[in-house]
Amino acid sequence: MSEPPIIILVRPQLGENIGKAARAMLNFGLTQMRIVNPRDGWPNPSAGPAASGADIVLEQAQVFDTLAEATADISHIYATTVRKRGVTKPVLTPQEAAGEIVTAQGRSAILFGAERSGLETDEVAAARKIITVPINPEFGSLNLAQAVILCAYEWSKHQGLASPPKVDIAPPAPQKELDGMIRHLFGLLEDRGYFFPEKRTAVTQQTLRNLLTKPGWNSLEMRTLRGVLSAFGKARQD
Amino acid sequence: MSEPPIIILVRPQLGENIGKAARAMLNFGLTQMRIVNPRDGWPNPSAGPAASGADIVLEQAQVFDTLAEATADISHIYATTVRKRGVTKPVLTPQEAAGEIVTAQGRSAILFGAERSGLETDEVAAARKIITVPINPEFGSLNLAQAVILCAYEWSKHQGLASPPKVDIAPPAPQKELDGMIRHLFGLLEDRGYFFPEKRTAVTQQTLRNLLTKPGWNSLEMRTLRGVLSAFGKARQD
Repeated sequence: MSEPPIIILVRPQLGENIGKAARAMLNFGLTQMRIVNPRDGWPNPSAGPAASGADIVLEQAQVFDTLAEATADISHIYATTVRKRGVTKPVLTPQEAAGEIVTAQGRSAILFGAERSGLETDEVAAARKIITVPINPEFGSLNLAQAVILCAYEWSKHQGLASPPKVDIAPPAPQKELDGMIRHLFGLLEDRGYFFPEKRTAVTQQTLRNLLTKPGWNSLEMRTLRGVLSAFGKARQD
Repeated sequence: MSEPPIIILVRPQLGENIGKAARAMLNFGLTQMRIVNPRDGWPNPSAGPAASGADIVLEQAQVFDTLAEATADISHIYATTVRKRGVTKPVLTPQEAAGEIVTAQGRSAILFGAERSGLETDEVAAARKIITVPINPEFGSLNLAQAVILCAYEWSKHQGLASPPKVDIAPPAPQKELDGMIRHLFGLLEDRGYFFPEKRTAVTQQTLRNLLTKPGWNSLEMRTLRGVLSAFGKARQD
């Protein structure tokens, strides 16, 4: 059985909602929360009362300035989104994601965006897969803690069950290795004037990032790719 | 397919929680709420704002003085409880209950007790079966709306809206596109003396081929990668 998923709240606004998310998590046995760039700083005095006793989750919560830092050690990143908007990644239900997470090699994390706006496109880009709760098409109004509780609940259903047979596949490399490889590539491409015109740079980089996040390459594969990039960084021999 | 279950709130205290329960219901397609003996009367001005737009549920809610009247037309009554206390009825998970409800003949209803105290023993006695959410034994702290949402969510999984939101993801490119991209890469790497020593060439190429086959890139992604390779094929601009 793999480690429980880490719940990552990205740019949460109200401390109360962070507390409610902690309560939702602990109800179903999840204890590891990470918070990226909380609007009102951290600790937040409104979080504790809303947690209704799930203080341990808040006390152990780790705060990061960037999503990249918060996911550096994560192999499997899932992004929760409500709407489909040009999605080019696999979309799973909470149930399907939970089934994957419990058998995954390497740490998993689930990203939840800010209360009203959700995750930004570039935050979704960091994930290989998307979780969408199938919801009433005429009334979709899940709040943050409700989205968290449904994911935690589905994960908890797999606990206590017989552990599934281990598959001996190397897990995707931690996100920091992927980020390092992508930075390496972007640097080389910049030298070659690939990002032109400049106003298209952000979109082009996001396209590449999505494409390179898709494979879930392991650490060994990542090293091979770094070797390829190093070869491109050298002068041609012909 | 049977009719959707009716959600019966027994002696709810805060209007806000009634509103939140309505919101939780409508998210997953449940619209029929009955309220037994609400502490602060009905309608309750705090309910509407908490419903976040699920007004239709509140407007159609029926209010009863007694549980007997509220359940007079119900064939299958389920009582939700947190703790087991001398229970002599079948205990189901929300998932198991949902499976029964969707195939049941006659109306089903799920009872939820007051916020702090839950259902009284004589209220549980009205039900033939019990629903208990399997929860962290060391931290069970589900509020009313959360208990409602988990039951509604499980029921919804059997409905059409619960079918996973399948997104049209472009399929992997035909193999000849993959092969073309790989040949392009190998040509560039050869120019740069990457395949050295020569006797390792076959193994190295196989490693790269495996790594590049793994992603299942689609045709659009393949074209993007060809663009990247073309950039590497050009002279550096620095």
